[in-house]
Amino acid sequence: VSSIRTTSPEVLIELDRSRPRGLRAQVEEELRAAIRSGRLAAGTVLPSSRALAADLGVTRGVVVAAYDQLISEGYLSAHQGSGTVVDATVRRAAPPVASRPAAAPLDVDFRPGLPDLDLFPRTAWGRATRAALQSTPRDDLGYIASQGLPQLRQELADYLGRVRGVSAEPDRLVICNGFGHGLSLVAGVLRAAGHDVFAVEDPGYDGARTTLAFTGMRHRGTPVDDDGLVVDRLRGSGARVAVVTPAHQNPTGAVMSSARRTALVAWAREVGGYVVEDDYDAEYRYDRHPTGAIQGLDPDRVIYCGTTSKSLAPGLRLGWLVLPDELVEPVVADRRATDSATSSILQATYAAFLAAGDLDRHLRRTRRIYRQRRDALIAGLARWFPEATPCGVSAGLQFLLRLPDHLDEEAFAARALEAGTKVYPLGPYRTGRSGDHWPGILLGYGRLTPAAAERGARVLGETARAAGR
Amino acid sequence: VSSIRTTSPEVLIELDRSRPRGLRAQVEEELRAAIRSGRLAAGTVLPSSRALAADLGVTRGVVVAAYDQLISEGYLSAHQGSGTVVDATVRRAAPPVASRPAAAPLDVDFRPGLPDLDLFPRTAWGRATRAALQSTPRDDLGYIASQGLPQLRQELADYLGRVRGVSAEPDRLVICNGFGHGLSLVAGVLRAAGHDVFAVEDPGYDGARTTLAFTGMRHRGTPVDDDGLVVDRLRGSGARVAVVTPAHQNPTGAVMSSARRTALVAWAREVGGYVVEDDYDAEYRYDRHPTGAIQGLDPDRVIYCGTTSKSLAPGLRLGWLVLPDELVEPVVADRRATDSATSSILQATYAAFLAAGDLDRHLRRTRRIYRQRRDALIAGLARWFPEATPCGVSAGLQFLLRLPDHLDEEAFAARALEAGTKVYPLGPYRTGRSGDHWPGILLGYGRLTPAAAERGARVLGETARAAGR
Repeated sequence: VSSIRTTSPEVLIELDRSRPRGLRAQVEEELRAAIRSGRLAAGTVLPSSRALAADLGVTRGVVVAAYDQLISEGYLSAHQGSGTVVDATVRRAAPPVASRPAAAPLDVDFRPGLPDLDLFPRTAWGRATRAALQSTPRDDLGYIASQGLPQLRQELADYLGRVRGVSAEPDRLVICNGFGHGLSLVAGVLRAAGHDVFAVEDPGYDGARTTLAFTGMRHRGTPVDDDGLVVDRLRGSGARVAVVTPAHQNPTGAVMSSARRTALVAWAREVGGYVVEDDYDAEYRYDRHPTGAIQGLDPDRVIYCGTTSKSLAPGLRLGWLVLPDELVEPVVADRRATDSATSSILQATYAAFLAAGDLDRHLRRTRRIYRQRRDALIAGLARWFPEATPCGVSAGLQFLLRLPDHLDEEAFAARALEAGTKVYPLGPYRTGRSGDHWPGILLGYGRLTPAAAERGARVLGETARAAGR
Repeated sequence: VSSIRTTSPEVLIELDRSRPRGLRAQVEEELRAAIRSGRLAAGTVLPSSRALAADLGVTRGVVVAAYDQLISEGYLSAHQGSGTVVDATVRRAAPPVASRPAAAPLDVDFRPGLPDLDLFPRTAWGRATRAALQSTPRDDLGYIASQGLPQLRQELADYLGRVRGVSAEPDRLVICNGFGHGLSLVAGVLRAAGHDVFAVEDPGYDGARTTLAFTGMRHRGTPVDDDGLVVDRLRGSGARVAVVTPAHQNPTGAVMSSARRTALVAWAREVGGYVVEDDYDAEYRYDRHPTGAIQGLDPDRVIYCGTTSKSLAPGLRLGWLVLPDELVEPVVADRRATDSATSSILQATYAAFLAAGDLDRHLRRTRRIYRQRRDALIAGLARWFPEATPCGVSAGLQFLLRLPDHLDEEAFAARALEAGTKVYPLGPYRTGRSGDHWPGILLGYGRLTPAAAERGARVLGETARAAGR
């Protein structure tokens, strides 16, 4: 074991080059442990990846990858100009993990927000690519219109109208590279138009807050209850734009009630603002009637955003905005001046995929599989951990598990991890400014077999009982 | 013919619904003619696409497409917040085009900046896509590292080192979506670091100036001569960053001399700044030894950017930055907070394409074809228009033709267009602040058969003789 005390800030990182576990994983583990134990406090600026790599005698790529992973887990934040910083939302585990016995190997990872990538329809996608390569007109390989290929906008308009109740004329559609991209485009345009604060759901998707902060936009956390965003609380927030996930609130799973939908759109009209509708994992619905998009209520006040990240794979980097008329040109102008357009071959491929009915087929197939996984997890929890309450289970690829009030979600997660099951505390989703603070964990089940989901449920129940002692 | 006088601003647009020419093309022609004749003055704000569409009784898409086309031709500019504006760089044709007889149908289009999209290797690209779909690990379909797939960064590092003399460790490579995207990322990061002005080449690529303006960066035009950028003129400009096209200056075709390269890098060191090297169409070289990238001289001072837009097709939207170490993390942080990453399937496809040797094969094949086209054009000009001087012909997919001094480049282009040959005046490339102002036109020959190139040359010679009378 080579122990190295790095320079600025001082942090002990021990690498054992004889261990089969890779150096990257070791750097990651050591940093994670240091943050969780409090040795690295919130707000601490980490050394540059170059400096740390030099200290540790590893390549810079090892450190960059470890930082990347910890950023994606919410332990670190990276901000332009200020380097990599220990995130303020990480709460320390108590009692400290360091004093516990060595953890079991990771058996069940309940990571939320991901579909099962083994189900990605590689064959159908390859077929759609071939079709696109054969039929794409020559000029579509050149500098295409920044708004997106007409045939894809038409296919999407048809699909969104049919499946999501979106009033999506192709002229209002702009193809983009995923939700974060769409949100950053919208935030940039609205910032230029004088908006400087967005309301976000609390708890809500932390990635949206990062994107808003990056564009210089402030956010106001607004509470969520069983009917979705508490619209009354928007008044007086200073925000005239609200980002919401009405189909399946991320992370609580609440479906926004009809009354709230109407009230939300009325609020946007009243303040002369907008609703940004993140139609997050709306494709997966199991036990209830589909709820259309809010956008259909008022296409001039609602900015709709959808992607292929949950229905197919995040790696595609494909999304779309359906915009109020007056925002189409400013958003397209932004694309024109920056990244020009989304890859035309990717667009043509997705258009062919939709036209062939492959998305419908894929969703029918995967919906059945995800439902089985969800049912197994719910059954497992009912058997092994009945004191906990699953919330928002009727849709999506994940749900929120409300823990008994006496449990600390961070300590619970740390104990479960030692037993080989990884869960995701609700903490990072909270803005910390509103709402109840009961303990909860996110359980993504999309990637787990029914057997794994049940094993995980058993570990959670045992963890709770051990913590209760 | 239905003539409509639109509201704000008043501009007469005549649409003839009985003509086979589409409405979009007609709107485009009418607007172009109005701008060229001066009926629409520089700086005029056009009606919104919605308002104009309503005036004309066409769908909004028709107007958006026409605006898009005129923006890409430089007649219009679209800026966030201020709508679509008649570009200040458009110079009016004199004598006015309107008084001339109806133009001949377009026979030869010398549009620069585009490869022949008919040569795009659809079969090889399809094969690479299949290989990528078969071998891409599951996790690469998820949220990948914003810096780009390791296998593509490795392939590119090898290729750039071998072919362009770029010192490209994979750790310094960031995959992006083309040159405009790369430049906007770099400008954003450097702006956060206190830079507020970039030096650009004069004449130089106007798209780069648009991108810089969009990120809030000012630019300073710096003259170019036969040895490339006049480095001495950078001193006192206030800029500490210079954007250059050393391999084949866009648009003059000058190759930056060895002395200037050394001086440029020395300047960057002296001012603590950077050189942004746009390795524009460097793949196509015919009569001279390849010149390596400047980046090899000082990887800590030179930001290298390459793309597939000239070697393969702009529609792919794929590019890469090779960055000084300290800029890697800020640029990756920007991606992480905005569009996350470039499509992983696109990245994996290009990695497979490179690994199979398909790029080398494609370049060998197309280089021969482009050389024949260039030779035919040069021979045609020597025969039909010997008074004009081709500049920078040894590389690229286009060259600059210096016209005899008595000709006005705009009037010349207008007359040639009436005879069915479209050429691109040098005007929009100039910042108007430095350098000689002799008349010149850009001739892109990449998409023309040798016969078409020669027909075009003949029209140009005849146009000059008609203008001389």
